[in-house]
Amino acid sequence: MSRDELPIGVFDSGIGGLTVLRQLHRQLPAEGTIYLGDTARVPYGTKSAQVVTRYALNNARLLVQRGVKLLVVACNTASAVALEALEDALDVPVVGVIEPGARRAAAVSGSGVVGVIGTEGTITSGSYQQALARVRPDLVVQARACPLFVPLAEEGWQGHPLAEQVAREYLQGWLRPDADTLILGCTHYPVLADAIARVLGTGIRLVDSASAVAAEVEKMLDNRQLRASSGATATREYWVTDVPERFRRVGRIFLDEEIAGVRLVDVAEQPH
Amino acid sequence: MSRDELPIGVFDSGIGGLTVLRQLHRQLPAEGTIYLGDTARVPYGTKSAQVVTRYALNNARLLVQRGVKLLVVACNTASAVALEALEDALDVPVVGVIEPGARRAAAVSGSGVVGVIGTEGTITSGSYQQALARVRPDLVVQARACPLFVPLAEEGWQGHPLAEQVAREYLQGWLRPDADTLILGCTHYPVLADAIARVLGTGIRLVDSASAVAAEVEKMLDNRQLRASSGATATREYWVTDVPERFRRVGRIFLDEEIAGVRLVDVAEQPH
Repeated sequence: MSRDELPIGVFDSGIGGLTVLRQLHRQLPAEGTIYLGDTARVPYGTKSAQVVTRYALNNARLLVQRGVKLLVVACNTASAVALEALEDALDVPVVGVIEPGARRAAAVSGSGVVGVIGTEGTITSGSYQQALARVRPDLVVQARACPLFVPLAEEGWQGHPLAEQVAREYLQGWLRPDADTLILGCTHYPVLADAIARVLGTGIRLVDSASAVAAEVEKMLDNRQLRASSGATATREYWVTDVPERFRRVGRIFLDEEIAGVRLVDVAEQPH
Repeated sequence: MSRDELPIGVFDSGIGGLTVLRQLHRQLPAEGTIYLGDTARVPYGTKSAQVVTRYALNNARLLVQRGVKLLVVACNTASAVALEALEDALDVPVVGVIEPGARRAAAVSGSGVVGVIGTEGTITSGSYQQALARVRPDLVVQARACPLFVPLAEEGWQGHPLAEQVAREYLQGWLRPDADTLILGCTHYPVLADAIARVLGTGIRLVDSASAVAAEVEKMLDNRQLRASSGATATREYWVTDVPERFRRVGRIFLDEEIAGVRLVDVAEQPH
């Protein structure tokens, strides 16, 4: 098999990264994908940088051993703390979700005041704040962790009044009046976008990384002449580290379609 | 060191088990304890029986290697799915939280109608339902998973109006009118007891396993002549599998005192 026919590897701590995968499928329908959800160790957002980096390397190596032409880290926490370690350890190109999301937000903000919300791990890493400062040093950035958003989304309560109440608790009155953009800095959050938008009103543009990541992947494949030929049938594989039942059931909300053929894989760690 | 001078080993997926540890310290102040919180792999409640059993065996072996005279599984999910595997694999006595809690509830219920709430893993295992049927076959049992309670408690929102709203969502109108007892079948839930009680009213007695577990431990130590001599200084050790900062900060709410001297340990799995 020539390199361009290999699939794109995508991993996340669990199901949130399916919002990124959905966008990859839409924007690059000819590309095959293998999605690995590390459901035996989810969530990453409350764990330390050391532990998340270890898990990210386990996941990435499993995908690279299988054969992928490019790796997408479809998890904000892992992108925030482990991207460099992944780039050092792997010999395939690696795309995280932080840089593309930050560039998109910097491009769309008129006022130059931008908010970013994410997990504890993502926000305390300062990765969005640094990425935004690199692309547009004049930006004013407000950052905040919203730990209950992930379990709310996983409970399937995105349309429930409680989703809006929790969003109000975290977000009401928090952004400066001149802010015009909010980065949804966690791949789970797009499913809560309606509740968040109701709290923040129409003056705030919500940015999620998914379409920016897909555009970045497209550019990297083009630069390396790795685009799949459009006639090929694209692989769609789903791997999980815990039994598939819950992934299939809850993942549907995130992928926006049925998930078929989920396979249990083993990322048991080597003693270190 | 003679066997009775060894500490009691206690493990949980993270911090919830500290509500059980607190009760052990109160009822058995002369006993030393080592508490292991598996914070690198928390939570267990949404994971499968296979994965939780694997993690429980990792944790237990680490404590047994260190030397403990008895093991307390201070996690409802692990007690529900892994107790038998632990008893088979270890040569120290093992106490879970399900049986003691079920016996206590069966003893206090006048009407014979009992509710039990817990994580997805605990409730779908049917362990409480089976334990209650064993001790009192005439009981009517209603069981329900409340997945948002753990993240709410970990966020420290136990006194927030949202805690009561989430409790209302899960519990209002759910119990039969003749129910008189509710088992808090997750070691996180005692910190939410006030919110739960406000929703259910004064007619429902809340039962948590902690004091029943401490009584069971006391009985087993007596039977085996393993009680520590009261003159000894009791060890208090805390081990975690992810960096201690969050454990220390959030754990205070659960232990109801400051947590000193937390140590990072490694339970990396052997390839299997």
